[in-house]
Amino acid sequence: MAGALDNIRIVLVGTLYTGNVGSACRAMANMGIRHLTLAAPNLQNGWDEAEKFAVHATDILKNRVETATFEEAVADCVAVVGTTARGGLYRQHVKPPRECAAELLKLAADGPVAIVFGREDKGLTNEEIAQCTHLLRIPVDEGYTSINLAQAVLIACYELFTAAGTYVPPHEKASPAPQAQKMQLMKNWAEMLEKIGFCESVQRDHFMQGFHRVFSRGVYTKDDAALLLGVARQAIWTASHTS
Amino acid sequence: MAGALDNIRIVLVGTLYTGNVGSACRAMANMGIRHLTLAAPNLQNGWDEAEKFAVHATDILKNRVETATFEEAVADCVAVVGTTARGGLYRQHVKPPRECAAELLKLAADGPVAIVFGREDKGLTNEEIAQCTHLLRIPVDEGYTSINLAQAVLIACYELFTAAGTYVPPHEKASPAPQAQKMQLMKNWAEMLEKIGFCESVQRDHFMQGFHRVFSRGVYTKDDAALLLGVARQAIWTASHTS
Repeated sequence: MAGALDNIRIVLVGTLYTGNVGSACRAMANMGIRHLTLAAPNLQNGWDEAEKFAVHATDILKNRVETATFEEAVADCVAVVGTTARGGLYRQHVKPPRECAAELLKLAADGPVAIVFGREDKGLTNEEIAQCTHLLRIPVDEGYTSINLAQAVLIACYELFTAAGTYVPPHEKASPAPQAQKMQLMKNWAEMLEKIGFCESVQRDHFMQGFHRVFSRGVYTKDDAALLLGVARQAIWTASHTS
Repeated sequence: MAGALDNIRIVLVGTLYTGNVGSACRAMANMGIRHLTLAAPNLQNGWDEAEKFAVHATDILKNRVETATFEEAVADCVAVVGTTARGGLYRQHVKPPRECAAELLKLAADGPVAIVFGREDKGLTNEEIAQCTHLLRIPVDEGYTSINLAQAVLIACYELFTAAGTYVPPHEKASPAPQAQKMQLMKNWAEMLEKIGFCESVQRDHFMQGFHRVFSRGVYTKDDAALLLGVARQAIWTASHTS
């Protein structure tokens, strides 16, 4: 689904502040989404602020498309996804972005999909909402529902990027410890407890249950097990050379 | 799990810019997380910028705790969750926030859980990472991995807020249309097509399959069905009164 991300278009309608445009560019770059359209921008300040907030995502800023109207910005799109924080009669079928991310990527395999964000102060108008094929609402706390424009762009892009499944989280280079190594670890620690005089023999099994609990949570890789086996080996050696 | 969110503490270490602190406050407010600690802040500009970006979340800003060291900021925490964009030997066991959000909320039921974010330019040091009980990495595109501090705070808080399950997405007020109403709709449309002379009788079933396809995708609520039933009724009435 990586190719589908290339068909996602972020459309900002009537945006007031270039800083938000720049921050949106950076958020898009973080999430592998590169097409930005400003529809009927209403910018109140200069582009230097946009460049400052875009940081190294200035290519997205430079390659932006500007259109005079909302309609032009989405005319070729196979889906037009409005974002809205407000409720109201024609906004009841909004969905959280996570719920429709997979469907939107599927549509994006066939053509451009616009994710549309309204004005900082007023959002999208009812007329614009009426032209959307899908509506998104970002889940927010009821106590503070006003989300910054670039932050809203980030969440939408993050959900699409995550749903695209291209990100592979890093994993441990050391392979998981096999059971036999774990049992060897328990055996050597039992021997060590005796040799270093940690406890009476009769108490040993009791304490070993405690160590087993800790190790079963914490010893995952061969390296983890080897580290703790080394402690037992060295403590046994030291105990045998002191008197 | 709503109460657990109240035990989440956002810890910003060595932060340079107050604008990021303000934006982080707003992001936290959006996600129902209200405790902010600045550990060893290294602020390069004045608080007016923080207030500007916090917008209406200035209470979080005002109630922030400042500590001289990282250790003080997390001393009472039952889990210390470092965030890191960098790889490296002791950072291999990082997880995406979505993967560990539920576990962190569970821990937060028992005591404060710190989500720790490093400096804008250098992140967390190896010494700080070594004190963390968990490590997070936000999934980002390999082509542009540097995420803004407040944006990183937003994603972490968003995943915790979403996992807490307190957000209930809005739903249609009209109840879903029952099958009998949908079938009535098909029957009335079939009659209408004939009455308005839309097509020859022999083609009617063919066209009805097309309408069925559209309606099965689009007619969901009783209101949807009633709307289209109304069209058929009116067209039939009009057809019977013209000649």
